[in-house]
Amino acid sequence: MAEVSSLPTPSLVVDVEAFDANCAAMDSVRPGRDLRPHVKAFKSTALARRLHDAGHTAFCAATPREIEGMAAAGLGDDLLLANESLDVARLGSLDANVTVAVDSESILDAAIAGGVPSVLIDIDVGLPRCGCDIETGERLAERARAAGLSVRGVMGYEGHLMMVSDRNEQAEKVALAMATLLDAHERIGGDIVSGGGTGTFDTNTWCTEIQAGSYTLMDTQYSTLDLPFRQALGVLATVISTSPKGWIVANAGLKSLGMDHGDPTWAGPGKVLYCSDEHVTLIPDDLGDWTVGDRVLLHPAHVDPTVAKHERMWLVSGDDVIDEWPIDLPHW
Amino acid sequence: MAEVSSLPTPSLVVDVEAFDANCAAMDSVRPGRDLRPHVKAFKSTALARRLHDAGHTAFCAATPREIEGMAAAGLGDDLLLANESLDVARLGSLDANVTVAVDSESILDAAIAGGVPSVLIDIDVGLPRCGCDIETGERLAERARAAGLSVRGVMGYEGHLMMVSDRNEQAEKVALAMATLLDAHERIGGDIVSGGGTGTFDTNTWCTEIQAGSYTLMDTQYSTLDLPFRQALGVLATVISTSPKGWIVANAGLKSLGMDHGDPTWAGPGKVLYCSDEHVTLIPDDLGDWTVGDRVLLHPAHVDPTVAKHERMWLVSGDDVIDEWPIDLPHW
Repeated sequence: MAEVSSLPTPSLVVDVEAFDANCAAMDSVRPGRDLRPHVKAFKSTALARRLHDAGHTAFCAATPREIEGMAAAGLGDDLLLANESLDVARLGSLDANVTVAVDSESILDAAIAGGVPSVLIDIDVGLPRCGCDIETGERLAERARAAGLSVRGVMGYEGHLMMVSDRNEQAEKVALAMATLLDAHERIGGDIVSGGGTGTFDTNTWCTEIQAGSYTLMDTQYSTLDLPFRQALGVLATVISTSPKGWIVANAGLKSLGMDHGDPTWAGPGKVLYCSDEHVTLIPDDLGDWTVGDRVLLHPAHVDPTVAKHERMWLVSGDDVIDEWPIDLPHW
Repeated sequence: MAEVSSLPTPSLVVDVEAFDANCAAMDSVRPGRDLRPHVKAFKSTALARRLHDAGHTAFCAATPREIEGMAAAGLGDDLLLANESLDVARLGSLDANVTVAVDSESILDAAIAGGVPSVLIDIDVGLPRCGCDIETGERLAERARAAGLSVRGVMGYEGHLMMVSDRNEQAEKVALAMATLLDAHERIGGDIVSGGGTGTFDTNTWCTEIQAGSYTLMDTQYSTLDLPFRQALGVLATVISTSPKGWIVANAGLKSLGMDHGDPTWAGPGKVLYCSDEHVTLIPDDLGDWTVGDRVLLHPAHVDPTVAKHERMWLVSGDDVIDEWPIDLPHW
């Protein structure tokens, strides 16, 4: 295929060596069905297929459209909507094995009405977001079974513990959070205890499957932890202006970078001054090294919303583009 | 058409009364060609057509794809790429009247090679981004004319002054910045002096045309200024979970909201706790008022990157949906 230098900009590029190393590091701890990759992190069935081919045949997603896209791509062996949605009627008729998370009567009603065959009971394990208490979960499981649905088990996302930097401290806190989930599992039944994420992929030893996706591409936020994954995803941009006052400007800004965790990083040598909608202004150590047309590589602070802004990723090895991965699970 | 309550979520909704009032407020100060609406703020040819029909027949854009989309929609009377790009060859052959900004030999070379007929010389007026000094601008204009291009004038964006909250102080600073641009104009010639934005739409009395777009939809950032525009754009979301611990969760998160200026605001009554990828957790004043399936309306902190994350806007009047505006100028 093409050379990296000929790619249009701004573009998402994935370093294949880093990607493969990240996958190998995860697989050594979470092989096959011990991992349920989360497609919300990468929104690409081409990337998902790589994981499927490596033995991770079950996936989870955050939106109905992600589930539909995975089913359409023939990756529907075991799809979990790991999120509450009232808009699940569209999932009941898919040619795929679909399970949805439920944490209230209303969500369960939607799943039943929509013809969804299976549910996981979503338990609150400490993150202020979705999930119910155990007693509610028991009632929901009973009602789901009475309505003919399969209750495959429980899920609980300890998202509030992902960024605890001390691994021992994190492991202790995860154990406490998962004690609640295991208690719920004992009372509710089913084969699945689902939870975790990239930040707790090894400290969460309690779940039967870990829901992680960011480890494939990584970002500067997760890189502050001592994890065996490295940044595989960058945003490639072109220098479009240089100023004798000391800055250069490249054509990647707020609209091509996830900004909720702040500015991207730049290997430089130099630093990021600020991002605006379509620009990043950079302060290079040596202005004389830079000219219009040069390329810069930025590492986004947060992978998931960065990927969501693009139409494709380019898989690269050194200077060569070796594949194109459409971001074909866009929006919601 | 439909009722607002039947819209899928998360969705962008535009309050037609606020939108019309914003347009009227701008038109009273900047009628017709005194305004060059910036499509980067709303990325929709349907919205652009409304402005065109009100007499604003010239537009500016930030990306080549926005220019192409405007030309394809028959809105190509006078299109300015108000940004430096090396990727302008695709604009030279459009069935439209295209002008591009240039601030260096390299960008001018690209415009010449790409067959672009007209340029504006982009002058640095104090924002650390694109734009050259006056002497460079003179040289570029001379070279452009020698190559047969039309030099229509100058542009200079005082983006660093948009958020100066004291209007008198802002007016003074804008006058200083524009003194540079007027000096450049005197030496470079042409009919156009282009600059400004929503934040300086009335204090920049120096330009022949103002480049503003956010005023149509508005955001919470610009709302901190004393401007005659109000928030017309909201993100409609559905409550998908409620917790007896005191929070509710709605299905709009980082991926449907521009986050570079922080969390959205919520009229509540209550407050925003935090956003994650697909969720916002809200603390309502009275939890008992809320149930799964209720709708909430969030106002994004920054319009431009919020719009860029969606596929369409719904124009609404009270409870009625009166039009759908596709966001048909996506990406770059």
